[in-house]
Amino acid sequence: MSPVINGQLLFKGAVTGGSPIPGGNTEYSESATIELDNASLNGGILLKNIALSVELYMMARMRPASAPGHGVPYVEGKPVENYGVGVVLRSEDPNVKAGEHYYGDLPFEQYTIRKDTEDLLKLNNAYNLPWSLFVGTLGMAGQTAYYGWKEYAKPKKGEVAFVSSAAGTVGSLIVQLAKADGLKVIASAGSDEKVAFLKDIGADVAFNYKTSDTKEVLQKEGPINIYWDNVGGATLEAALDAAARGATFIECGMISTFTSPGYNVKNLFNIVTREIKIFGFIVANPQLIANHHDAFYEDLPERIAKGEIKYKEDRTYGLKDGGKVILDCIMGANDGKKVIVLE
Amino acid sequence: MSPVINGQLLFKGAVTGGSPIPGGNTEYSESATIELDNASLNGGILLKNIALSVELYMMARMRPASAPGHGVPYVEGKPVENYGVGVVLRSEDPNVKAGEHYYGDLPFEQYTIRKDTEDLLKLNNAYNLPWSLFVGTLGMAGQTAYYGWKEYAKPKKGEVAFVSSAAGTVGSLIVQLAKADGLKVIASAGSDEKVAFLKDIGADVAFNYKTSDTKEVLQKEGPINIYWDNVGGATLEAALDAAARGATFIECGMISTFTSPGYNVKNLFNIVTREIKIFGFIVANPQLIANHHDAFYEDLPERIAKGEIKYKEDRTYGLKDGGKVILDCIMGANDGKKVIVLE
Repeated sequence: MSPVINGQLLFKGAVTGGSPIPGGNTEYSESATIELDNASLNGGILLKNIALSVELYMMARMRPASAPGHGVPYVEGKPVENYGVGVVLRSEDPNVKAGEHYYGDLPFEQYTIRKDTEDLLKLNNAYNLPWSLFVGTLGMAGQTAYYGWKEYAKPKKGEVAFVSSAAGTVGSLIVQLAKADGLKVIASAGSDEKVAFLKDIGADVAFNYKTSDTKEVLQKEGPINIYWDNVGGATLEAALDAAARGATFIECGMISTFTSPGYNVKNLFNIVTREIKIFGFIVANPQLIANHHDAFYEDLPERIAKGEIKYKEDRTYGLKDGGKVILDCIMGANDGKKVIVLE
Repeated sequence: MSPVINGQLLFKGAVTGGSPIPGGNTEYSESATIELDNASLNGGILLKNIALSVELYMMARMRPASAPGHGVPYVEGKPVENYGVGVVLRSEDPNVKAGEHYYGDLPFEQYTIRKDTEDLLKLNNAYNLPWSLFVGTLGMAGQTAYYGWKEYAKPKKGEVAFVSSAAGTVGSLIVQLAKADGLKVIASAGSDEKVAFLKDIGADVAFNYKTSDTKEVLQKEGPINIYWDNVGGATLEAALDAAARGATFIECGMISTFTSPGYNVKNLFNIVTREIKIFGFIVANPQLIANHHDAFYEDLPERIAKGEIKYKEDRTYGLKDGGKVILDCIMGANDGKKVIVLE
């Protein structure tokens, strides 16, 4: 069999200000080819990548290689990477069989030869859910929400939770976990469509932060006992001003640090006077994984299959427009979980 | 017996910017008198106040009555208040006897008639320590340090702790508790005299933040596992930049919010990426009191009597210069725990 094109979304250079430019910081390339039947695997495996997750977090990996930050910086000239699902086409690894599905940090390319399979997780899809779900609600984003909520929220029935960037995969899962725990949930997002989705998944109060004043909404609907923070900045400031005594803030992300740099929170003293507890975390924390990984895969697929937990995907087919998909994700121009599906 | 003068330090008006002015926001008055033998007690007690604590925290109570904030605002025309020790001269309360010593929030005056004794704590001075200690290392400041450290620090031997405003009563107790727990302790203060005191009580690294760069010291001596924050602002920012993964920040105070308003911390995103846990608290928290109050009074007096825990007092005798004592305390112009002793 002759070589086939292995389409790739390459990292072309660090983002040093603003947002990543498709064709500038990233570029789709068809210059690589691969012989699917004969390419040497050196004892490894050949994956056909079928679903790739696009996340805000990729922005942090687009920094200059020498800069400190979140995640391993991308390498110029190599594909960008993020969590994805691949199906095994061939294997020389005795522990891996063709046809099995694996989840892990994968290059944005159609086919990947990989020697080391230690960092890949074999997926069990007992409820026959779409594989793309395993890079979203059943992938790193879902784990982020699940681990953080189970570890830190310690909710009491009747308490008030506020979730920012609530229509995202993490946020929308938090809204539903909080509702299932008997909380009143206030949820913010950046468009009226997202607000409609938030109401659909059970948020008691959902608002568009671009047209409503977050401080006013929280003053009216709070005080808040739990704040799930995805954005930081002015929203965190509003939450600090609306915090109940002893409130818990779970710091999952501060996307506004990238999208609105230079805004500095002015009311940190509330942390002392209101006795606020703040927990920053990342999903890769080994203790969180040990505590919650198994429960996550036992609990969530069934609840999704039963329709108890809803999700929304924003699919793009193929890697050609990958750079724009990443940019759209960073700009919030998505309608559900951004995922690239390769068929 | 004829009436005697009851000297008082009166609150004359809210501080709306800057620091409280002696003679402006506070004023010493000798216009009140009291008949020590005959004054009606209405079933209450007559206290001779013998030691009054002067603390930064009093600044927050000098706000306008309508402004939200920390502690109950002072009432114009009445004495300022803070924790103090008084000895009972006369009692009509069957549960209180003359000669007993009580601790609580007391007016800055020589004599106080008080009906309600519920908020007063009867002191036991088994080691015959100076009574003034019970408003400092054995009073609210000491409790603040002890409760916060025992509840939140969870130190592991060999870890690195950073303490700001470390020469104060709270800070110096934290330095010694941290050393006793086997930590490397970095301590900052605002004068070379204070730095010398910090070395004397065992700090491994002590520096004057006015002449050394906090960020540089922490970069060199860190990363830090525990930050005991008394100051907030730029120092908190430096600590966030020097935090180890999973560090614990105990937010006891943010005095710089008052002394250097307008400085906003720029690197809160470190909370997420370094998985920092932050605990704000106030010493009046009922759960902290329930958890640690008894241990505090069982543990500390003995350690002080044995010389294991050191302290430093900066005494002023009499209320006449009370306004200046408060101002000096706020400006950091003290050499040890500021206490007013009335004899």
